Amino acid sequence: MNAPLPPASIQRPAPPALLDALAQRFGEHFSTAQAVREQHGRDEGSISAPPPAGVVFAQSTQDVQDAVRLAAAHDTPVIAYGAGSSLEGHLLAVQGGISLDVSRMNQVLSIDADDLTVTVQPGITRKALNEAIKHTGLFFPIDPGADASIGGMAATRASGTNAVRYGTLRENVLALQVVTANGEVIRTGTRARKSSAGYDLTRLMVGSEGTLGIFTEVTLRLYPLPEAVSAAICSFPSIEAAVRTVIQTIQLGVPIARVELIDIHSVRVVNAYSKLGLREEPMLLMEFHGSPASVQEQAETVQQIASEWGGKAFEWATTPEERSRLWAARHNAYFAAVQSRPGCKAISTDTCVPISRLADCLLDSVAEADASGLPYFLVGHVGDGNFHFGYLLDPQVPAERELAERLNQQLVARALAMGGTCTGEHGVGIHKMGFLLDEAGEGAVQMMRAIKQALDPKNILNPGKIFSL
Amino acid sequence: MNAPLPPASIQRPAPPALLDALAQRFGEHFSTAQAVREQHGRDEGSISAPPPAGVVFAQSTQDVQDAVRLAAAHDTPVIAYGAGSSLEGHLLAVQGGISLDVSRMNQVLSIDADDLTVTVQPGITRKALNEAIKHTGLFFPIDPGADASIGGMAATRASGTNAVRYGTLRENVLALQVVTANGEVIRTGTRARKSSAGYDLTRLMVGSEGTLGIFTEVTLRLYPLPEAVSAAICSFPSIEAAVRTVIQTIQLGVPIARVELIDIHSVRVVNAYSKLGLREEPMLLMEFHGSPASVQEQAETVQQIASEWGGKAFEWATTPEERSRLWAARHNAYFAAVQSRPGCKAISTDTCVPISRLADCLLDSVAEADASGLPYFLVGHVGDGNFHFGYLLDPQVPAERELAERLNQQLVARALAMGGTCTGEHGVGIHKMGFLLDEAGEGAVQMMRAIKQALDPKNILNPGKIFSL
Repeated sequence: MNAPLPPASIQRPAPPALLDALAQRFGEHFSTAQAVREQHGRDEGSISAPPPAGVVFAQSTQDVQDAVRLAAAHDTPVIAYGAGSSLEGHLLAVQGGISLDVSRMNQVLSIDADDLTVTVQPGITRKALNEAIKHTGLFFPIDPGADASIGGMAATRASGTNAVRYGTLRENVLALQVVTANGEVIRTGTRARKSSAGYDLTRLMVGSEGTLGIFTEVTLRLYPLPEAVSAAICSFPSIEAAVRTVIQTIQLGVPIARVELIDIHSVRVVNAYSKLGLREEPMLLMEFHGSPASVQEQAETVQQIASEWGGKAFEWATTPEERSRLWAARHNAYFAAVQSRPGCKAISTDTCVPISRLADCLLDSVAEADASGLPYFLVGHVGDGNFHFGYLLDPQVPAERELAERLNQQLVARALAMGGTCTGEHGVGIHKMGFLLDEAGEGAVQMMRAIKQALDPKNILNPGKIFSL
Repeated sequence: MNAPLPPASIQRPAPPALLDALAQRFGEHFSTAQAVREQHGRDEGSISAPPPAGVVFAQSTQDVQDAVRLAAAHDTPVIAYGAGSSLEGHLLAVQGGISLDVSRMNQVLSIDADDLTVTVQPGITRKALNEAIKHTGLFFPIDPGADASIGGMAATRASGTNAVRYGTLRENVLALQVVTANGEVIRTGTRARKSSAGYDLTRLMVGSEGTLGIFTEVTLRLYPLPEAVSAAICSFPSIEAAVRTVIQTIQLGVPIARVELIDIHSVRVVNAYSKLGLREEPMLLMEFHGSPASVQEQAETVQQIASEWGGKAFEWATTPEERSRLWAARHNAYFAAVQSRPGCKAISTDTCVPISRLADCLLDSVAEADASGLPYFLVGHVGDGNFHFGYLLDPQVPAERELAERLNQQLVARALAMGGTCTGEHGVGIHKMGFLLDEAGEGAVQMMRAIKQALDPKNILNPGKIFSL
C-alpha cells in the first residue's frame, strides 16, 4: 500500500456536467472506466491518492485546448499525463479533476537535421524519438532511465545519464507550443540557438510540472552520433575512491559523456538478477564520445586518475553489444534491487550538490544509511553531483517508511547546507514541497506562487503540486 | 543627434520628496548633477530620452533594497545601471525615474575553483572578473565585445564570441541574488549543476532587462583554461563560401570555440584603422580550444571543409600575442567602421537564425543592403547563426535613419520567417518591442506582461522596456 495523502487537501471534484460535456466532445476518447482512471491516478512514486474522475485521450492541440477550456469552465483541475513514469506524485489528482493523456500525440512533426533540431508532439517517448531519427545520424542524448515521454521530461526538467556532457531538458528544449490555462495556444522560443527576445518563457515552462501550461509541441536540440563511443567499467576499493576519481575528472574538464556510480549493494543485486559476474565492489560506469583520438585521450586521462585512486579492472566495451552488457548493470539496478527484497517498495532520493562536496555528502549519507539498518542501493549521475539512494522498505511496516523519509530528510538538509538542491532531476511534485521551501526560501516560493496565480488564476493546471497556494 | 523617443510615453517624474529621501539616505552616493544624470540616461544605442532625475550609487544589497523601497513608496521608476554598454535603449529613463548604478558593487564574493563556479557582485566587468580569477586556471568565456558588467550581461542574456562552444548567459548563470520590486531579497538557483526544484526563476530573471528584479549577486560557471588554444584566419572568395564552411563545421559537431565572420567592408576599415594588412576578402576568424591533439584534429577538419569552399591563406596563431593581433580585426571592426565615416552613427542589427538558413538570410540581406547604397559593415557570431549589420548613417539626415530602420525591419522579417529571432544577444529594450510582438505573438507577450504585473504591480522596475503594458 502506498502512503495515503494527508487528508487536509482541498477537494474539487469534477461536476457531472463537465463529465457529460467531455463525453459529448470526445466520445470514445474520454473514459471514466475505473481501470483507466486508476492507471492515470498514479505514477512510479510512493504516494497514492484517489484517481481522477475521467481521462481524456487527446489527439491534437485542439483537443487539449477544448479539454482545458471545459475544465476551466467548471473550475476543475486538469492534469497532463504522458508515460506515467514520474516519481514524486506529479500525476496524482490530489484535488480531484480530470487526467489529460497526451500519449497518443506521439508524432515527429519535423526533423531539421541540418539544424540539429527536431519538433515532436509531447507524447512521444525518448526511445521512440531516437528510433524515428536514427536514419539522420543524429540522436537525442538525454536518458533518465525510464522510457519517459518528451513532454513529461520537459515538464520535470529531466536529465539522467549523458547530462554531464549534453545538459538537461533545460538546455535542450529550444521551443514549445503550450496550451495555457484559458485554453489559448502560445509559442515560446524559436529554432535559433540563442535569443534575447524577452522573458525566457521556454525555460519557465520547462520544469513547471504541468502547472503553468500543457505542452503540445516540443522542439529539441539533437547531436551528431559520435564518431567513436567507448564504454568502460572500473571497480574501486571504496565509494570515496570512485567519487574522488569523478571529481578530478570533472575538474580537469574532461568531456566525459556518462559517469555513473554503482555501489556495492547495486552490484550485488544486479549480479544476482542479471548474472553479470561483476566484481562486488563500488564501480564507475563511464562512456566517452568523440573522434577516435579524442575518445582515446579522454579514456587515458580518466584511467590515470582512477589508477591513482586504486581503480582496477578497467573493462572496455566499444561495440554496441558489449556496451549494452555493461550498461545493463546500471539500467537494471532499480528492478534488481526491488526484486532483491520481495514485496518491497523503493523510495528514491534525488539530491544534487556542487561537485566538490560530492564525496562528503555521499559518504556521510552512506554512513547514516548503513547505521539505520534499512536495506538500500545507491546509484548516481555523479559527474553532475547527483545521486539516488533507493531505500527498500516494506510497505506494510510504517516504521520503515518513516525511517526512509527521515534518512531522506537528513540527506536533503545535508545537500542544502552544501549549496545543493533537493532534486536534481525528479522534480518537486507533492513529495518535496517542504524541501523546496527549505531550499528556495519563502520569498522565492512566493514569487513562484505569484507567477502561478498570474498565469492560472483559477488554479486548474495540476493544482497542489510544487507549492501550496 | 539620437532619434528622439516617441512623445506618447507615460511620464512619471520623481517627486521632490523622493529626491530628498534619497539624498538623506545615500548622502554623497546620490547625485542629481546634470552630467551624472546624462551619463546614466543613455547607452550605446541610437535612441535618446531625457535623463533620470538622479543617480544612486549602490554599495551593497541593502543599498539596492533601500533605493527600490523608496522608489516604490513614491511610485517612481528605478533603472539598474552597470557599465552603460547596452544597445537597445535599456538604460533610458523613458518614463522618468532614478538610475540605480551598481558599478561600485564590483567584488568577487567567492571563487569556488573546485566546482568551477564564482559568485560576484553585478557591477564587476567581464575583464575584471577574468583578471581576478586568472590564478585559478579557470576563465569565464563569454565575450560580448564590450567590457560589460556581469549584471548587465545577465540582464540582457548576452553572449558574443565563444558562445558557440560555451553557451550564453542563459547557460552560464547558476544562481542569483535578486532584489524584488518590493525591496525584498530572494535567491534563485543553487551552485549545483542542475536542479528540478520548482520554476526556473534564474532563467526567468536572466534576460529580463531589469524589469523583474535587480541582481545583487551572480553565480557563474567557469571553465578550465584550455590546454591548447589555436586561432586561425581564413579568407574566402565570397560570403557564401565562408558561411557554407561554418554551416558544415557546426553540422559535423566540431566543438569550435569561436567562429566569426568579417565581411569585406569590415576588413577594409580595419586595415585602414589598424594597418593589419589583411587580404581584402570575406574572412572567418576561428579559435579552437582543447587538448593539443583535439585542437589539431578540429583545425584539420575545418581546414578541409574550408578548402572545399575555396578558403585560402589560412594564417595560424598559437601564442597569445599572435592571437591578439588576429582578433584585433574583429574587436576593432565597430570602431574602425564608425571612424571610416566621420560623424556617422552605427545602427546594429542582431538577428539569429537556424544555422541551415544562415546563408540565405545573410546573402539576401547583403544584396538588400548593397542595393540601398547605405554604407555598412557586417560581422557575426556565425556559428550560432547570429550576425550584425552595422549601418553607418549620418544622424543629421533623417532619410538615412529611416533607410537603416527599413533595412533592419526587412532583415528581421526575413529572420522570423526562417524560424529565427529578432535578437540573438542585444535584447529588446525599447527599440525592438514591435519586433518582439512579431516574433513571439500577442499571446506569449501577454504572458510576459502577466508575469511582469504579478512581480512588479507598481511597474517601477525599468518600465516601458520589452513590451508596453
